[in-house]
Amino acid sequence: MRIALLGGTGDIGEGLALRWAYDTNHEVVIGSREADRAANKAEEYETELSRRGLDVTVEGYANPEAAAGEDVVVVAVPPYHVADTVEAVADDLDEDAVLVSPAVGMKRDEAGMHYHRPGAGSVTAVAADAAPEAIPTVGAFHSLSADRLANLDVELDLNTLVVGDDEDARDTVAALGDDIEGIRPLDAGPLANAAEVESVTPLLINLARYNEGLAHAGVTFD
Amino acid sequence: MRIALLGGTGDIGEGLALRWAYDTNHEVVIGSREADRAANKAEEYETELSRRGLDVTVEGYANPEAAAGEDVVVVAVPPYHVADTVEAVADDLDEDAVLVSPAVGMKRDEAGMHYHRPGAGSVTAVAADAAPEAIPTVGAFHSLSADRLANLDVELDLNTLVVGDDEDARDTVAALGDDIEGIRPLDAGPLANAAEVESVTPLLINLARYNEGLAHAGVTFD
Repeated sequence: MRIALLGGTGDIGEGLALRWAYDTNHEVVIGSREADRAANKAEEYETELSRRGLDVTVEGYANPEAAAGEDVVVVAVPPYHVADTVEAVADDLDEDAVLVSPAVGMKRDEAGMHYHRPGAGSVTAVAADAAPEAIPTVGAFHSLSADRLANLDVELDLNTLVVGDDEDARDTVAALGDDIEGIRPLDAGPLANAAEVESVTPLLINLARYNEGLAHAGVTFD
Repeated sequence: MRIALLGGTGDIGEGLALRWAYDTNHEVVIGSREADRAANKAEEYETELSRRGLDVTVEGYANPEAAAGEDVVVVAVPPYHVADTVEAVADDLDEDAVLVSPAVGMKRDEAGMHYHRPGAGSVTAVAADAAPEAIPTVGAFHSLSADRLANLDVELDLNTLVVGDDEDARDTVAALGDDIEGIRPLDAGPLANAAEVESVTPLLINLARYNEGLAHAGVTFD
């Protein structure tokens, strides 16, 4: 499969790009608002992968070019850029593309981080609302530590939750998650369940703050 | 320690009562709105424990008598009864008592269960607001499967999250959690972080619905 990572120059984008490139045969394309930045980062990832003996091409383009014709388009941008980013690439999306939203809205107070629920109900719903009607949107990869993903020396053993109204699209994204070693996707059901999924991320940040050894914690359900 | 379980005739109350009675030397007192019901359930628990060779006394009283003079008072009632239940026992609480809130507000729609955040910010905050000012309130034991707790044949290996403004009270409740074999408490910080803690419970219910083998799942952070 061909996977575009819009915002693929950021932390979570980097982690997913490196893992997919390293663990799978999927082709990874990095998108950014600036084509140069995307191309530079893509080269960085290639260098990192080649240091590990892996000779792969990672391409980098401006977001619309990166998204064009890809099977899966991950919107790995901050929550307040999700709608804009999806709208900017809407016309370039393949008609069979699946959109993936890993972003979480949060706000901080003295006690810790809190889930900041958008009016749409969730950030996944914000992405879905901005997407063309025929393109299914799936929330996934929210609660994975970017640091842990991006460090290929770290073995993963974590769940990721997949949520969205289109079951086939959920299956596609779950399979992509499963392709990364040590990631076990779970199905969280339709889009209306996305807020509970996204709420895990601020909780993880709070647990990292109040407990030793949980700096890059993830979550497992069993 | 002496632990009162108000609503100790319900599912989560039963699970905690049996585990504390079986795994620890803490004295467990069951509370209910009706003294008879509490006494009958307490006797049931004694019978279950004695079948396993454990000769312990479990007392059962109406909530105010159950709460009176106890070190820790767990308000194991449905969320809409939390404020009433706390108010009903307020005058009987020991001045050094710690109140514990395991309840979660939820509402169901077609897609699944959703966190129903009370106006106070969390059910733990509802309990804290109803409690006398000098009594610290701690949220804990939300995400533990009642079925798994109540079946003493099942080995546990789960986290529970402890949240509340009083650090000493959090430590007391965490220690009580730790006394149950296979429960590892984590500190989620002050009361303002309780909504993210309580949100895990509807998520667990949704994961149980959409995935095989997660019917009584719990959560682990690492």
